[in-house]
Amino acid sequence: MGDSHKPHPTVRFETHPDRYRHWQLDTSGPVAKLTMNVREDEGLRPGYPLKLNSYDLGVDIELADAIMRIRFEHPDVRALEITSGKDRIFCSGANIYMLGSSSHAFKVNFCKFTNETRLYLEEMSAESGIPTLAALNGTASGGGYELAIACDEIVLADDGSSAVSLPEAPLLAVLPGTGGLTRLVDKRKIRRDLADVFSTVAEGIRGKRAVQWNLVDDAPPKAKFDEAVKKHADALAAKSKRKPFKAITLSPLEAKRSETGAEYKYVTLALDKGKRVATLTMRAPEGAEPATADELQKAGANAWAIRAWRELDDALLDLRFNHLDVGVIRLETRGDQDKVLAVDKMLAANKDDGLVREVTLLMKRVLKRLEMTSRSIFAIVDPQSAFAGSMLELALAADRVYMLDHPDEDVAVQTSAMNAGPLPMANGLTRLQSRFLREPERVGRVLETKGPIDTQTANDLGLVTFAPDDIDWDDEIRIAFEERASMSPDAMTGMEASLRWGGPETMETKIFGRLSAWQNWIFQRPNAVGERGALTLYGRPERPEFDWNRT
Amino acid sequence: MGDSHKPHPTVRFETHPDRYRHWQLDTSGPVAKLTMNVREDEGLRPGYPLKLNSYDLGVDIELADAIMRIRFEHPDVRALEITSGKDRIFCSGANIYMLGSSSHAFKVNFCKFTNETRLYLEEMSAESGIPTLAALNGTASGGGYELAIACDEIVLADDGSSAVSLPEAPLLAVLPGTGGLTRLVDKRKIRRDLADVFSTVAEGIRGKRAVQWNLVDDAPPKAKFDEAVKKHADALAAKSKRKPFKAITLSPLEAKRSETGAEYKYVTLALDKGKRVATLTMRAPEGAEPATADELQKAGANAWAIRAWRELDDALLDLRFNHLDVGVIRLETRGDQDKVLAVDKMLAANKDDGLVREVTLLMKRVLKRLEMTSRSIFAIVDPQSAFAGSMLELALAADRVYMLDHPDEDVAVQTSAMNAGPLPMANGLTRLQSRFLREPERVGRVLETKGPIDTQTANDLGLVTFAPDDIDWDDEIRIAFEERASMSPDAMTGMEASLRWGGPETMETKIFGRLSAWQNWIFQRPNAVGERGALTLYGRPERPEFDWNRT
Repeated sequence: MGDSHKPHPTVRFETHPDRYRHWQLDTSGPVAKLTMNVREDEGLRPGYPLKLNSYDLGVDIELADAIMRIRFEHPDVRALEITSGKDRIFCSGANIYMLGSSSHAFKVNFCKFTNETRLYLEEMSAESGIPTLAALNGTASGGGYELAIACDEIVLADDGSSAVSLPEAPLLAVLPGTGGLTRLVDKRKIRRDLADVFSTVAEGIRGKRAVQWNLVDDAPPKAKFDEAVKKHADALAAKSKRKPFKAITLSPLEAKRSETGAEYKYVTLALDKGKRVATLTMRAPEGAEPATADELQKAGANAWAIRAWRELDDALLDLRFNHLDVGVIRLETRGDQDKVLAVDKMLAANKDDGLVREVTLLMKRVLKRLEMTSRSIFAIVDPQSAFAGSMLELALAADRVYMLDHPDEDVAVQTSAMNAGPLPMANGLTRLQSRFLREPERVGRVLETKGPIDTQTANDLGLVTFAPDDIDWDDEIRIAFEERASMSPDAMTGMEASLRWGGPETMETKIFGRLSAWQNWIFQRPNAVGERGALTLYGRPERPEFDWNRT
Repeated sequence: MGDSHKPHPTVRFETHPDRYRHWQLDTSGPVAKLTMNVREDEGLRPGYPLKLNSYDLGVDIELADAIMRIRFEHPDVRALEITSGKDRIFCSGANIYMLGSSSHAFKVNFCKFTNETRLYLEEMSAESGIPTLAALNGTASGGGYELAIACDEIVLADDGSSAVSLPEAPLLAVLPGTGGLTRLVDKRKIRRDLADVFSTVAEGIRGKRAVQWNLVDDAPPKAKFDEAVKKHADALAAKSKRKPFKAITLSPLEAKRSETGAEYKYVTLALDKGKRVATLTMRAPEGAEPATADELQKAGANAWAIRAWRELDDALLDLRFNHLDVGVIRLETRGDQDKVLAVDKMLAANKDDGLVREVTLLMKRVLKRLEMTSRSIFAIVDPQSAFAGSMLELALAADRVYMLDHPDEDVAVQTSAMNAGPLPMANGLTRLQSRFLREPERVGRVLETKGPIDTQTANDLGLVTFAPDDIDWDDEIRIAFEERASMSPDAMTGMEASLRWGGPETMETKIFGRLSAWQNWIFQRPNAVGERGALTLYGRPERPEFDWNRT
C-alpha cells in the first residue's frame, strides 16, 4: 500500500487561550470549565468540516495547551470540568474524513499526540491534584467517549437519546485507539464481555444501563443534569490535594525556524536531511537561576527549568510531525553541569512547593515524550557535554550512549536527586531502574558516585554503550549514525517500542505498546483503508467490502 | 496490499517421534536430548529448501509434539537439552524464503504457533520441573537464538566463529517476533542499549562478550563444549522438581475429517462456511472416568481429561490454519455436568500427582490457545450444555456468554475447584479474577455458589452477557452471529486482543500483545514485504528500497 496522501502542512504546537478556535477555558472558579465548541470550518487543513464537535489535531493542540495553562497559570483551580458548547452532542471523536484522507504516518502521530494529551489529564489528576469531570450534555462517541474515560468521573445526561459509544470497530473497521479499549477494561474495569458488546454496538449505551455497566458514573435526567454536574465537580474539587503557589505566565517560545531546523533559547534542532539525522542540542542554564521556590515563581516561564523543557517538548513535536524522514536523533548537551545540578538541587529541596512540583512533572512528561518519539536516539557525550542530573535523563532515555574516552580532556556525566525518582518512565520505574533490571544494585552504585563520573567509571558503572577513544571517535560515531539511518524505519520503530520499556507494564505502556500497535496494524489493512475499506467509504452510499480472512 | 499468495496447503498437527523428519528425540537418560537436523527438502510446502537448519511450521510442529511426548511419555526425564545435528550451525531461524512467500495471515499464524511452542518450553521448566538447556554447537541466529532464549540456560561454543544474533531488523526489516525482543529485556534482562546494539548487528555477538552481555550463560572453547554442556545439563537435572509417575502413551486422535469440519471422540468442529461460523462442541465424559491417579495412569490417553482436551487443541489449530475465513466460534458443550465435576474432583484431589499435574497443565494450555485464537468466541448455554468446572472455563474464555432463560427447562452452569486457580490465563489471573477486576468479591461469590446455577442466578452473579428468554432466543442468537460475522476481521482481532487480557501483564501477554502486534504491523509494511522490501528481496542481488518516513 503505497501512501499516496499529500504531506500534511507544517504543524505548530504553540497556542494561547486568546487564540483558541475550538475551546473556551473558564478559570473563574475553583472548578475550571473547558467547553468544546468546534468550529466546522477551522480544521488544520482543508477538506473536512469538523461537524458534530469532531476533532482534528488542531483541536487537540488547544486541549493540550489548556491543560498546561491550568497547571501553571491557574493555581487556584482545584478541579476541571470538560463539557461541550453544542446542543445534544458532547463530542463525536476524531473526524473521520480527516482520518480517511491522512497518511498512515500522520494518523499514527495524531493518535500518539491525542493519547499523550489524555494521559496528561490523568496525570494532572493523580499528580497535581486537579481531578477531572466529563460532563456529557449529549452523545459522546468514539474519541469523544475516549476523552470522557480519561476523566476521573463521567456524568451523562439521561434524555432518551444521549449515549456513550465506541463505534470505531463496527462503523469504520478501526479501533478506539486513543486508549479507549485499554481504559474500558483496565481503568473502568468493565467486564470483558460487556466491553465486547459496548465496543461493537455502534449506537452505544444510554442512561441507567451505562451506569450499570460502569461506562459512566451518573446519568441524571436532563432537567437535573446541571445540578448533578455541579455536585460531582464540587465533590472532586473538595478532595483536591493541589498545593498552593502563585501563578506564572507561560510566555511564547519564539523559536527562530528555518529550513534546517529551529533555534530556541536553550534548545537547537539542526536537521541534516541528507543523512536523515537531527541533532537535538539542549543547553544548561547560563546565568543565575532561581535558588528558592519564591525566586522560581518570580522568574516564571523564563526559568531554565521551565523554558528549556518546554522548548525541548516543542522541538520533539516539530520533529515528529514536520520532519518524518529523520531517522536518528543525535542528542547533545552543552554548558555548565554545575548549573544544572544547582537547579536540580533547588527542585529537590522544594519538592512540596506547588510550582516546583509542576516544573518537575513538566520535565517528566517531556522525557516521556522523547522516549515515545519513534526515532532512534543516540546520545553523544563529549568534553562540552552537560549530561548531569535531569539532563542525564536525556542520555538514559536514549537507545545508545556514546562517550568519548580522551586522555587529555575532561569528559564526564553526573547524577543528582532527579535521577532517583522524580522523573519516572511510563513503566513506573526510573530510567536507572529500567536500565539495570538484571543488576538492581547498580542503581545505588551509580547514585552514590558523587561528582563528575569520567568515561572509564561511567563505562564500568554501565551508563555507556560505547566509549571509543579519541582516535576512533569520529569514525565510530559517523558509522553508527550511517548504519542506523540506513535501516528500515518500520523495523526500528517496532524494535525500539519493544526494547525501551522493559519490566512492569502500566496502563500507559499498554496503551502505547499494545493498543497503538494493533491500531497501527489495522490502519494499514485494506479492510479499513483500502479502496473498498470501511474508513475510506464512510459517509458514501457504497458498503465496504471485506477480505474475510482472519489474521 | 492485496495478498496475492496462494492459500497454504492444509496443515495437520499430529505427528510422532517415529515420523519426525527434522528432530531426533533421545530419552534414554535423565537428560533428554532433542537434536535439530532439518531436512532441506522436507518443507511443508515446495519452494523453499530448509538450509542451515532453518525451520518452517513443520519443524515446529515436531518440536511441539516432542515437548508433549516428554511430558507424558517420559516421566523419568529431568531436564532437556536442545542442540543441533549440523556442524557449526545450531539453527538459523525461520526460513526466509518461506516467510517471503507466505501470506500475511500465514506468517502471523506461524509466528503465533512458534511463540506458543517456546512458551511451552518455559512452562515445562517452571511447572513440570523439566529445565531446559540450549547447547549451541554453532551459530544461533534469528529464530534460532529465540529458541535458545526460551531455554533456561544457553551454552555457546567459543570457536572463533559461532555467534548468537538477531539479524531480522538489519537484514530483513522485520522483528525478532518470536519473543526475541521481549525475552532480551524481560527475561535475560539485558541492558536496553546493549539489546539495541545486539538487535541491529547482523553478524551477532560471540564468545566472552556474549557472556558479558548475558546473551548466553557460558561460552567454553570448542574442545570443552561437550563437557560444559554435560555439566550444565546435569546441574539442571539435579535441581529438577519433577514429580514421579508412570508413563502413558499419547495415542493418535483419529479425527474423521470432511469438507464441513472434523469429528473427534469428544469434540466436533462443524463449519458453516456461508455464515463464517464454526460450531465447536465439546462433550463431557460419557462412561466411567478414572477416580484416582492410579486409574488415570491406567486409562492413559483415553481418559477424557487428556483426550478431550487434546482434541480441542487440534481442532483449534485446524481452525486457525485451515479455515481462515471463519470469523466466529460458536462454543457449545454437551453431556453430563456431574461427570465433568467428578473428573475435576479427581484432578483437584490428586494435584500433587505427576500425571495429574501434566493433565491440568494440558487443560491450561488448551484454554490459553483458545483465547489466543483470533476469532470471536460466543458461548451458548442451553439445556443440553455441560459448562461445569473445567468446561465452564470455556465459557469464561469466550468473548460473550448467551444463556437461555427458559421457564420449563433446566439450564445451568456449575463451578468446581478448577475455576479457582489451576487454569490461569496468560495474565496470571484466573478467568473469574479477570472477569471481575472491578468487583473482586464476586469471584468468591461465584465459587461459593454450590450446585447448578440457573440462568437468573448466573446472570445476577455476572457470568452471563445476555440471557434471552425462549421466545427471543433463536432470533437474538441468529442476529448476534450474523452481526459479528459481518464486522471487519482485522478490527475484531485487534479489539479482542485488547479486551481479553485486562489487569496484569506477563512476559507472555507482552509477547502476544506488544511484540506480535508490532510484528504484524511490520509484516504489512512495504519496507519489509513490498516489491522492493527487504524480506522480499533477501538473497537477491538487488538492494531493498525503503520509504524513509518514520511512523
